[in-house]
Amino acid sequence: MSQVKKVVLAYSGGLDTSAIIPWLKENYDCEVVAFVADVGQGDAELEGVEAKALASGASACYIADLKEELVADYIFPTLKTGAVYEGKYLLGTSMARPIIAKAQVACALEVGADALCHGCTGKGNDQVRFESCFAALAPQLKVIAPWREWDMRSREDLLNYLAERNIPCSASLEKIYSRDANAWHISTEGGVLEETWNQPNEHCWAWTKDPEEAPDAAELVSVKVEHGQIVAVDGEAMSPYNALVYLNKKGIEHGVGRIDIVENRMVGMKSRGCYETPGGTIMMEALRAVEQLVLDKECFDFRQTIGLKFSHLVYDGRWFTPLCQSLLAAADVIAQDVNGEVVLKLYKGNVTAVQKRSDNSLYSEEFATFGEDEVYDQSHAEGFIRLYSLASRIRALNEQKK
Amino acid sequence: MSQVKKVVLAYSGGLDTSAIIPWLKENYDCEVVAFVADVGQGDAELEGVEAKALASGASACYIADLKEELVADYIFPTLKTGAVYEGKYLLGTSMARPIIAKAQVACALEVGADALCHGCTGKGNDQVRFESCFAALAPQLKVIAPWREWDMRSREDLLNYLAERNIPCSASLEKIYSRDANAWHISTEGGVLEETWNQPNEHCWAWTKDPEEAPDAAELVSVKVEHGQIVAVDGEAMSPYNALVYLNKKGIEHGVGRIDIVENRMVGMKSRGCYETPGGTIMMEALRAVEQLVLDKECFDFRQTIGLKFSHLVYDGRWFTPLCQSLLAAADVIAQDVNGEVVLKLYKGNVTAVQKRSDNSLYSEEFATFGEDEVYDQSHAEGFIRLYSLASRIRALNEQKK
Amino acid sequence: MSQVKKVVLAYSGGLDTSAIIPWLKENYDCEVVAFVADVGQGDAELEGVEAKALASGASACYIADLKEELVADYIFPTLKTGAVYEGKYLLGTSMARPIIAKAQVACALEVGADALCHGCTGKGNDQVRFESCFAALAPQLKVIAPWREWDMRSREDLLNYLAERNIPCSASLEKIYSRDANAWHISTEGGVLEETWNQPNEHCWAWTKDPEEAPDAAELVSVKVEHGQIVAVDGEAMSPYNALVYLNKKGIEHGVGRIDIVENRMVGMKSRGCYETPGGTIMMEALRAVEQLVLDKECFDFRQTIGLKFSHLVYDGRWFTPLCQSLLAAADVIAQDVNGEVVLKLYKGNVTAVQKRSDNSLYSEEFATFGEDEVYDQSHAEGFIRLYSLASRIRALNEQKK
Amino acid sequence: MSQVKKVVLAYSGGLDTSAIIPWLKENYDCEVVAFVADVGQGDAELEGVEAKALASGASACYIADLKEELVADYIFPTLKTGAVYEGKYLLGTSMARPIIAKAQVACALEVGADALCHGCTGKGNDQVRFESCFAALAPQLKVIAPWREWDMRSREDLLNYLAERNIPCSASLEKIYSRDANAWHISTEGGVLEETWNQPNEHCWAWTKDPEEAPDAAELVSVKVEHGQIVAVDGEAMSPYNALVYLNKKGIEHGVGRIDIVENRMVGMKSRGCYETPGGTIMMEALRAVEQLVLDKECFDFRQTIGLKFSHLVYDGRWFTPLCQSLLAAADVIAQDVNGEVVLKLYKGNVTAVQKRSDNSLYSEEFATFGEDEVYDQSHAEGFIRLYSLASRIRALNEQKK
Repeated sequence: MSQVKKVVLAYSGGLDTSAIIPWLKENYDCEVVAFVADVGQGDAELEGVEAKALASGASACYIADLKEELVADYIFPTLKTGAVYEGKYLLGTSMARPIIAKAQVACALEVGADALCHGCTGKGNDQVRFESCFAALAPQLKVIAPWREWDMRSREDLLNYLAERNIPCSASLEKIYSRDANAWHISTEGGVLEETWNQPNEHCWAWTKDPEEAPDAAELVSVKVEHGQIVAVDGEAMSPYNALVYLNKKGIEHGVGRIDIVENRMVGMKSRGCYETPGGTIMMEALRAVEQLVLDKECFDFRQTIGLKFSHLVYDGRWFTPLCQSLLAAADVIAQDVNGEVVLKLYKGNVTAVQKRSDNSLYSEEFATFGEDEVYDQSHAEGFIRLYSLASRIRALNEQKK
Repeated sequence: MSQVKKVVLAYSGGLDTSAIIPWLKENYDCEVVAFVADVGQGDAELEGVEAKALASGASACYIADLKEELVADYIFPTLKTGAVYEGKYLLGTSMARPIIAKAQVACALEVGADALCHGCTGKGNDQVRFESCFAALAPQLKVIAPWREWDMRSREDLLNYLAERNIPCSASLEKIYSRDANAWHISTEGGVLEETWNQPNEHCWAWTKDPEEAPDAAELVSVKVEHGQIVAVDGEAMSPYNALVYLNKKGIEHGVGRIDIVENRMVGMKSRGCYETPGGTIMMEALRAVEQLVLDKECFDFRQTIGLKFSHLVYDGRWFTPLCQSLLAAADVIAQDVNGEVVLKLYKGNVTAVQKRSDNSLYSEEFATFGEDEVYDQSHAEGFIRLYSLASRIRALNEQKK
Repeated sequence: MSQVKKVVLAYSGGLDTSAIIPWLKENYDCEVVAFVADVGQGDAELEGVEAKALASGASACYIADLKEELVADYIFPTLKTGAVYEGKYLLGTSMARPIIAKAQVACALEVGADALCHGCTGKGNDQVRFESCFAALAPQLKVIAPWREWDMRSREDLLNYLAERNIPCSASLEKIYSRDANAWHISTEGGVLEETWNQPNEHCWAWTKDPEEAPDAAELVSVKVEHGQIVAVDGEAMSPYNALVYLNKKGIEHGVGRIDIVENRMVGMKSRGCYETPGGTIMMEALRAVEQLVLDKECFDFRQTIGLKFSHLVYDGRWFTPLCQSLLAAADVIAQDVNGEVVLKLYKGNVTAVQKRSDNSLYSEEFATFGEDEVYDQSHAEGFIRLYSLASRIRALNEQKK
Repeated sequence: MSQVKKVVLAYSGGLDTSAIIPWLKENYDCEVVAFVADVGQGDAELEGVEAKALASGASACYIADLKEELVADYIFPTLKTGAVYEGKYLLGTSMARPIIAKAQVACALEVGADALCHGCTGKGNDQVRFESCFAALAPQLKVIAPWREWDMRSREDLLNYLAERNIPCSASLEKIYSRDANAWHISTEGGVLEETWNQPNEHCWAWTKDPEEAPDAAELVSVKVEHGQIVAVDGEAMSPYNALVYLNKKGIEHGVGRIDIVENRMVGMKSRGCYETPGGTIMMEALRAVEQLVLDKECFDFRQTIGLKFSHLVYDGRWFTPLCQSLLAAADVIAQDVNGEVVLKLYKGNVTAVQKRSDNSLYSEEFATFGEDEVYDQSHAEGFIRLYSLASRIRALNEQKK
């Protein structure tokens, strides 16, 4: 193994990264700096994380509050594109990886580290996302992926490894479901979900109420959109992160934002997960509702094309690429006209835009009933249709001559 | 006006087409044959339609039962593409137009007519769809679109026109909402919907229960899919049309398939409508669930691309074109592997695939836990990532040298 | 005909627009202002144009020099997208229409006109392009399209019309080929070209030497590109327009840039034309050569997708739309890295990039022969391939189990 | 190394695969069967190849004549899609890989082998293409890629390796350029081409005459196309392979089909090569010329989209996938109308379609000059334009109200 002096580890405080600290020190004979990204995964996960890192042998632990930046600079731009992976997935884990990688790299450069380390397994997407971002941001730094190097294969192995070294760890042996959370979403994998014919059970959902147990009374929430970004909720101006927190509460209460998906991973296999994106699902519906008012047919189609393309780009960890910037620039132009207000109804898992308006609306009663000679003369339709269908007509006449 | 001897009118029995019969005879001095397409719009609309046509002055009335063909040859192929217009609309009216046009043309050729007539208004999509199909199928026939020719502008005008001629008509003066129905869907436009800030009210929904009044108990329904087509429901083999009727009942009961949309019409303006597609929404969810199991990443993406493209094609009335056949052929190949079973839960407006399996599934617990050397070696991931991110790495190294 | 007081006519000095001036005055009883756009069509066409306009009855004639703006703000951005219509056409006429329309509208607003007029025929693209731009820029102005209104159908009709009014006109009765020129290109239609089985003859080419008569000695020309724009040619910094003029001379001499195409017009019919774009063809080849060095696989693919989409947008006259701005923004981001130098060989109709280099090049001998552990380890390929082909492997194993 | 008993090697008779035979026997203690694919690389390469294989230690040598199948089942379908990689490359090497892999797998199954071997290097595309095809066709077979396993790094290493074993080999120490040939094309890489600023020299072109030394007299060749396939040349019906051979001769003589490209490899790096596709370039031009006559605007655009997508699919070695079948099915439908005749002029590197006709042509003088009321009424254009530009008009009116 090549020479490493100081490595910055993306540290979560969980079992895996707790074991990685001593393993790095033993196997690379290097200093280990723990880097913790606060992307809104919740106070429970962050509590005491620094003490844990130091107890595991880290020389230092840095915690970066990335919550506002995550929502403002990664989630909101993605929302403008309308990206949804494979028709369902709102890209919760995917969007958080580039910002964590970027902050981790910044930390590494700050502390003069010569290597980066993450705790992702060798069968998943996240290793690809992290390392693709590392390659784009700091190709000179060595990357260490312990799960692809060591022989440990189970929680038991890890717990034994820590116990042998007298490193305290509160993790339990049994952990049926694996979860990943940030401000935008929480994912649950494993357990009964490993068989696609199994229904998800109550343990597969971590945040949201079961729609069947959500309130019997629907609730309305209003959202204000400017240039494709949510700027106020229920009449109050809010920062992107605060808007998300506010809408998460509403969505969780009404069972909004659950999906149960089998998806194609980047590494060629499929996986199944239950994902919850309560506030995000409301935001998505709100933006799409304003788009209905303001985008013309070609623009709407192109926005959908961008969204489809961007869903792969984000899922595939290609954030720090020219292609990403290009797609974001295209979406940003389209979003300039996406201004308006939407009232959404939340009810037992449903979120429905029931009222919408925009100063940029291309729909208007006034136009629809305009005097004929001013905007639309019904007789124009004949000419439109004749030219529109001319190629079909010529083709058919050709056929008849044969 | 050019010489017309016999015209075949797409007749519905409603006020508009009832007035068109005498108007054609007076203005074109021609024989009028009424053609009624039964696309599943319901017995109420069809009852006594022949008598009505004759009473209005038609020389004959032909009724064609197109229900099974509509579902089998137009809806099911469209479902394979996954087409959804502007992210929401399941193309209910759009898919019915080509089959009606085709049958109407066949009728015209049969009876030796020299013209075709429809009752679509001059601001809508349907005129374009009908006439594009006519152009592709029978360019030699003249097309008459009375709403673009006559001076009548209101229901009152039409009622007076009929009254003056002593033609019986049961239509009422007030008809706030305009509706279009077939086996797949019903649409509602007008009234309070003309202002996008208005919420839809109870009159805006014609078929489905309000989710808030749907049963408190969820219901499961199982669907069997072969080659991208639904072949059985709840364990019973069903024809395409029968499966749709069966699922419509379920969907209606549980408030499934409502959308409230502002969409871009082909003719450049936006319109707003409330559409209900109860069984279709269940079908769509079922097919997409099987796709999750069997399509790889590139195939899934291409199916989505086809779906986006096909949504415009169908919406725009381009069914009888080479492009349509090309897209359908592409979707059909992809659908070959779409085999499996899905159990869906219906609950207060939600339809969720909760169980799914397929013999073609690319997901399998077995593969996911396969021995390392047989299908997937975690160490392979490093090589994958290095090559996958190589261009980013080179670009970044380039930048650092500057 | 509705009331018009002052109309601004896009005036060329040719027979059609010369006849339009008196026709407008007689039929609309209005003042006619002639607007001449100098888009590089050549001195011959512009000579004496003001005198002609006044002699035909115009109250004033404004000439706007749009040459530099055309190349800098319309052609160069289009080149970044790589747009080529239907695989061949470099969009010469299409790109000039929006800038002419924009300047004509500006003139109309300046002189207080209430209408705009153009001399395009009713079967072509240009009427759609002009009027789409007018709709986007000045929807309040009435548009008059004489060729769709009057009864004149031939050059003879027009000459007679002018002769009856004693308006001098040097146009000849016979004009077999119709041409449109600007700084970028010249198009030729009509005559022998109306039958696709006819070869173009010498009259079908207006600018370029026949490759068979071009010099026997090849010539090299070098081009410098910054951010996707040509900034210097043969070592000399040049404005966009000057670079085009310079390269036109070279291309004309070597028979570069001829195409003979049957294309789909917007109005549903096909037309055939011979187009010459000598300098533009060199520019296009130069930009594409630099792109080969700097764009990664995904970026290159997306640039091609944008180019395909933009070719329709420009051809279809949709310049002043949000979609256009969106596509241009996307292309502009990608072009940021398109920096470098290219040497091109011109020889008897061929233009070939024979040398190319770029500071942003992702190709480099150095990388290709890099030590294995630094950028590329051949053993990485195995892992890449295993994951890359994993879905195929699983599908095949599935099949074998059946 | 896992147990291997019999391996089938894709054998070319060149230095690399000659060394692989003894290396496999020594390192895997297995029987080696040589498989030679005749894809039209030329008699020189095939002469004595069996004797060479046996002399190197192969237990048997099978030669499969794949020439006709390559052109008929791989090249012709690809031509229908119009695929061109990164705007230039006609996919010569890429298209040959799947058929070789398929025949090699068939041979392996026939002789009861348990492994497959190829001589591709670890930095190239071909390893990915071969192994992706192997994964799709015979995932149970082990794959051996010596260049990723052994320590040899140069021709000298290989020559020494053979000399030590007394295996005769006529290969020379110096081989500056690396070439790959089949019926469709020949590629040249290495040498002066490794620096992009170097012009290709005479050694970089293997087949075609330098355009500057090609005949001074142009030559015409006529091609007949049915359903997107070339069925006759110069009036004579020919099989796909024979047509290619015939056109290769013509193209070679006139210097047609040279490209000098820097391309993105699948493995993340760029490479530069000079490729010659003389007959293929003529075929491509011929098919595209017929398409101009028969495809309508939307179809043409979709064919281009398919072509762009298919270029990556073929380049990336994904032939044996559902996506490939889907794209081919789409292209095949579009090709149904691609019938006609083209005359092409060959002159000093240029190939130009100078005459074209088709019974399916949507262009026709007759239509273009049709009486107004039959197919195209110029007055229809106004209605078309009004509706076509309606969204722009509404948007502009909106803006003016602000």
